[in-house]
Amino acid sequence: MTEPAENRSEDLLFEFPDGSQRSFASGITGHDIAKSISGRLAREALSITVDDTVLDLHRPLYTGGTISINTWEHEDGKMAFWHSSAHVLAEAVEQLYPGVKLGIGPPIEQGFYYDIDFGDTKFGTEDLPAVEAKMIELARQKNTFDRFEISKEEALEHYKKKDDPYKLDLIEGLEDGTISFYKQGSFTDLCRGPHIPDTSTIKAVKLLNTAGAYWRGDNQSKQLTRIYGVSFPKKSMLDAFLHQLEEAKKRDHKKLGPQLGIYMIDRMVGSGLPMWLPNGTVLRRTLESFLREEQIRRGYQEVITPHIGNLELYKTSGHYPYYKDSQFAPMDVDDEGYLLKPMNCPHHHRIYDNEMRSYRDLPVRLAEFGTVYRYEQTGELNGLSRVRGFTQDDAHIYCSQEQLKEEIKNCIDLTQFVFNTFNMPVDIRLSFRDDNEKKYGGDLELWEQAQKDIREAADEMQLDYTIAKGEASFYGPKIDFIIHDALGRKWQLGTVQVDYVMPERFNLTFTGADNQKHRPVIIHRAPFGSMERFTSILIEHFAGYFPLWLSPQQAVIIPVSDQYNDLAGEYEKELLQAGIRVKTDRKKDQIGAKIRNAETAKIPYMLIIGEKEKENRTVSVRKHKKGDIGNFNFSEFLSIIKREIDDRMLPESDGG
Amino acid sequence: MTEPAENRSEDLLFEFPDGSQRSFASGITGHDIAKSISGRLAREALSITVDDTVLDLHRPLYTGGTISINTWEHEDGKMAFWHSSAHVLAEAVEQLYPGVKLGIGPPIEQGFYYDIDFGDTKFGTEDLPAVEAKMIELARQKNTFDRFEISKEEALEHYKKKDDPYKLDLIEGLEDGTISFYKQGSFTDLCRGPHIPDTSTIKAVKLLNTAGAYWRGDNQSKQLTRIYGVSFPKKSMLDAFLHQLEEAKKRDHKKLGPQLGIYMIDRMVGSGLPMWLPNGTVLRRTLESFLREEQIRRGYQEVITPHIGNLELYKTSGHYPYYKDSQFAPMDVDDEGYLLKPMNCPHHHRIYDNEMRSYRDLPVRLAEFGTVYRYEQTGELNGLSRVRGFTQDDAHIYCSQEQLKEEIKNCIDLTQFVFNTFNMPVDIRLSFRDDNEKKYGGDLELWEQAQKDIREAADEMQLDYTIAKGEASFYGPKIDFIIHDALGRKWQLGTVQVDYVMPERFNLTFTGADNQKHRPVIIHRAPFGSMERFTSILIEHFAGYFPLWLSPQQAVIIPVSDQYNDLAGEYEKELLQAGIRVKTDRKKDQIGAKIRNAETAKIPYMLIIGEKEKENRTVSVRKHKKGDIGNFNFSEFLSIIKREIDDRMLPESDGG
Repeated sequence: MTEPAENRSEDLLFEFPDGSQRSFASGITGHDIAKSISGRLAREALSITVDDTVLDLHRPLYTGGTISINTWEHEDGKMAFWHSSAHVLAEAVEQLYPGVKLGIGPPIEQGFYYDIDFGDTKFGTEDLPAVEAKMIELARQKNTFDRFEISKEEALEHYKKKDDPYKLDLIEGLEDGTISFYKQGSFTDLCRGPHIPDTSTIKAVKLLNTAGAYWRGDNQSKQLTRIYGVSFPKKSMLDAFLHQLEEAKKRDHKKLGPQLGIYMIDRMVGSGLPMWLPNGTVLRRTLESFLREEQIRRGYQEVITPHIGNLELYKTSGHYPYYKDSQFAPMDVDDEGYLLKPMNCPHHHRIYDNEMRSYRDLPVRLAEFGTVYRYEQTGELNGLSRVRGFTQDDAHIYCSQEQLKEEIKNCIDLTQFVFNTFNMPVDIRLSFRDDNEKKYGGDLELWEQAQKDIREAADEMQLDYTIAKGEASFYGPKIDFIIHDALGRKWQLGTVQVDYVMPERFNLTFTGADNQKHRPVIIHRAPFGSMERFTSILIEHFAGYFPLWLSPQQAVIIPVSDQYNDLAGEYEKELLQAGIRVKTDRKKDQIGAKIRNAETAKIPYMLIIGEKEKENRTVSVRKHKKGDIGNFNFSEFLSIIKREIDDRMLPESDGG
Repeated sequence: MTEPAENRSEDLLFEFPDGSQRSFASGITGHDIAKSISGRLAREALSITVDDTVLDLHRPLYTGGTISINTWEHEDGKMAFWHSSAHVLAEAVEQLYPGVKLGIGPPIEQGFYYDIDFGDTKFGTEDLPAVEAKMIELARQKNTFDRFEISKEEALEHYKKKDDPYKLDLIEGLEDGTISFYKQGSFTDLCRGPHIPDTSTIKAVKLLNTAGAYWRGDNQSKQLTRIYGVSFPKKSMLDAFLHQLEEAKKRDHKKLGPQLGIYMIDRMVGSGLPMWLPNGTVLRRTLESFLREEQIRRGYQEVITPHIGNLELYKTSGHYPYYKDSQFAPMDVDDEGYLLKPMNCPHHHRIYDNEMRSYRDLPVRLAEFGTVYRYEQTGELNGLSRVRGFTQDDAHIYCSQEQLKEEIKNCIDLTQFVFNTFNMPVDIRLSFRDDNEKKYGGDLELWEQAQKDIREAADEMQLDYTIAKGEASFYGPKIDFIIHDALGRKWQLGTVQVDYVMPERFNLTFTGADNQKHRPVIIHRAPFGSMERFTSILIEHFAGYFPLWLSPQQAVIIPVSDQYNDLAGEYEKELLQAGIRVKTDRKKDQIGAKIRNAETAKIPYMLIIGEKEKENRTVSVRKHKKGDIGNFNFSEFLSIIKREIDDRMLPESDGG
């Protein structure tokens, strides 16, 4: 950041996140500002964000604007911390393996990595502890991260001397005059920054694993060694992180899903094409019915459309050829192209357009559990969460501009209803346009009206939300719902998107009270997002211990010996009649083994019946993970379990 | 049929359909045999079938075998009648339009046609009545159909003289020595026969329409004029036929379907790719739930599989490349071919094979409402009944040979349960192998066991069935269900197929009680066949007046004026709560108009509420097609309508 002459001697006005404003002399640093607020903040601050730019804490400021002082609690603070940790990792590796060549080392969602060319030296996970120890040693030196800017020529000179082809490759692509380096201790790296003030806050480091990574992701280039790591300002945080990692591994849907009979992926059928096994199908159908009922109550109409469509549809929508790379190749039918549908929208637009619509018919809310297909690189595929075929709980609402706010509220309300059912906390983000960008379609005035409507809807509903400028889709502003799972991980699921572009492209109209043709607005929305991805999150959130209403098998009847099979049959019949998914385990195994099997299958209730139960028409009930919960009168138990299902009660306390 | 010397003087033994046997002197005719039974039978007989060959009634017989004497009531009799009528049609046209050239003139499902080259003469529907009249005139002449056989040379000579390129083309393809002609009155035609004794039984004729038809179906050849007709032995039969034709037109699902909001077909989406509109989706989901519930009760497990599959699957099953012409072209993904799935079987086989199966796990019954895609010629497409994408109510049952009979019984029972619900009569056909044909796969011994099992199952269930040799599929015998709709038309729907081939091809196994690997048998079954085709039949069967439980909208509440809107709202809420699909018509229209709208939309119940109803908490109820059925206490009406739904009651008397 060069020093702008005209501002040098003037005071700068800053606006803080709480809306308060203060002036500071030009040239002040983030650290000084933090200190002016509190000593603790100054100690904990890792970076600052002025307007949308994240900066080093010690960088002198010459322009005002909105300011946030970022600690570990802020994403921008954490990213600077991990970015700096990546530099320390590189420094440690350089010291332990002199002569290595460095690629890039960015922060990522959970930690950081560095791509390194070890030349002929072998490097593997067994070498990580030594590097970790070296990192901690270097961090303790409290080396400051010092920024300096140099010319492209000097930068090239530096790395030619160092004989580092990767950095040279990177510098070639940069403009002159903007090239910055950061130096800490004995290590210097080409870097845009920002970084934390010094290494001393890096108190705990864990290098997680190594992987091969092609230079610039190009499989024609050399494969470097990527070292993944994570670091924290406190040892206890690392412990918590490792514990969570362990938990996440236990809950991994790729392990639990097939094990619980939720889904399978078969190479012979195809990569990224999950097949829903019987248990998974029950789970999915239950989720679908749950949402379908709620949608009917809210005036949605369900439709079913084919999984292919004439290419004409996607040329009209603009999705072809522009998104061709993420689609399956068109098929030729009678000399016309057909596409495996990558989204349901164009089909729904044609259904809307199939009738003359009057203002009295609006809003028209078309819903479909629509399976769509998109091409993903093989390497990107991941269980149920990243697939090539998935089913959206899709709907399109066609309404007038006047109805928009009310419809947005309905969508928000439905989405919240859905996530509340799972007791998952939700962050709400209003994704608006960035007026500096030119990528948006549609009329500016309509955009502004829609953003106003969205904001008003959110305010009237007293939502806690953030606004993200520049996160809108190209056809309109949207609301994103980000849920937190039982491990505190965040997943972006449902969205509600306003669309002014497709009504134009598909020439959709309705006749107004003025007898004139008008354009409807479209809202795209999907609370779950996709059945596949949502199910993968549910599996991990509940660790496979689904709430009773979602459990594929809700109860198992275990007669202690053959002579209670009749009673088992009677109970089974009554439970089935009441809509409860129950089976009787009539195998010749020991009771203990039957209970273990039921625990492994994560069946919520085990109903054990023997002589006492037969005499009194009771059941001895075990609950999974809880053990024996006592002896119940059978019909009393039936009403307990029914209420648990009807109320969609969640598993107690542990959330899985 | 040449006279086999060795049989000339011996008696022939015939077995009649009732199992009785009688001997006749060699050289006897079918007519004589009929006469020996009854004079009436001799008068009504149209052809005979000896073993599987249909013959003229006056043809001398030199071999015995099974014999059936075919009257109008037999398919073989009707076909001879219509075939002979086609000859009379050609005779009439030749007389009215001398010099026309004749193509072919076969019987078809409902009547017959003849392809004729009228040269430069224009011929259209307006010319049909004159031809009809001429046909009746000729028929009254009681001309006999006389068969004679000639050499290929003579036959060619005959048509060269007549300058008829089409017949010459046909004769070129025939073997010498087998060429027969039939002559009635002044008309002679190249023909295999058989024909009825004489023209006098043709009492009523209707020529239905004309169409263009390429010679030999080849669009590079000349287009001839195809005249479609139908004929009957009684005038009353023609009247009934024409009445039914009129009825069928009124019930045409291609008219009613879109009109009632069941489905639409949109050129921009694609030919043969119906989209289910909101009303159709309710109907289809209701059908699916109905079958799903029943399947769960019978131990089926539902799965969901993707709509594409790696080509490897279909190469393994043998469906690719052998059925390539009826499939969409494969798509290339990462250098592997993927096919839009033409059937669900291979996916299910892979699910079966995903686990080690023990004899204790069998039968495994995997069900899916699976949407499949097959290529059909554009000209073959027809509303919902012939499409390029359809959803099968598919299931595959994997069982041991010992379980086969019981499983077949279960399948038959389920299919009958389904059709009984719609009160549709069903013909059952056991389609077995023809040992003379070589097209079948799998082990002969297993086939015989399966055919025995099927027959025993049918006998034990006391079914009325026919056996059709040669109608089995290549992989095993099957049972076909042919339903009769309200107009008496027959539709082949559900099938139950036994399959010994796919278990081999997919190498499916289970571990027996002997701890050895065994092959399961597979049953493929689909009671509805496809949701699309079945819905097209339901629409026509009920003429759109669906039974209440299937009606997309079951009731409409019509307040006689605004001041009863509150009561309407109350009633609506209570009905919705009870799961009844109801809406309130709050439009500003007159009551009469609202009732007319409801009648047009074929909504079963209209609930009219005014002052009297408000005072007494009653409803005045109109039933569609019936009019006013009286005033009911509201809660009494609610229980009536609920019972009608729960019991899946059919519309009264008229069947639609």
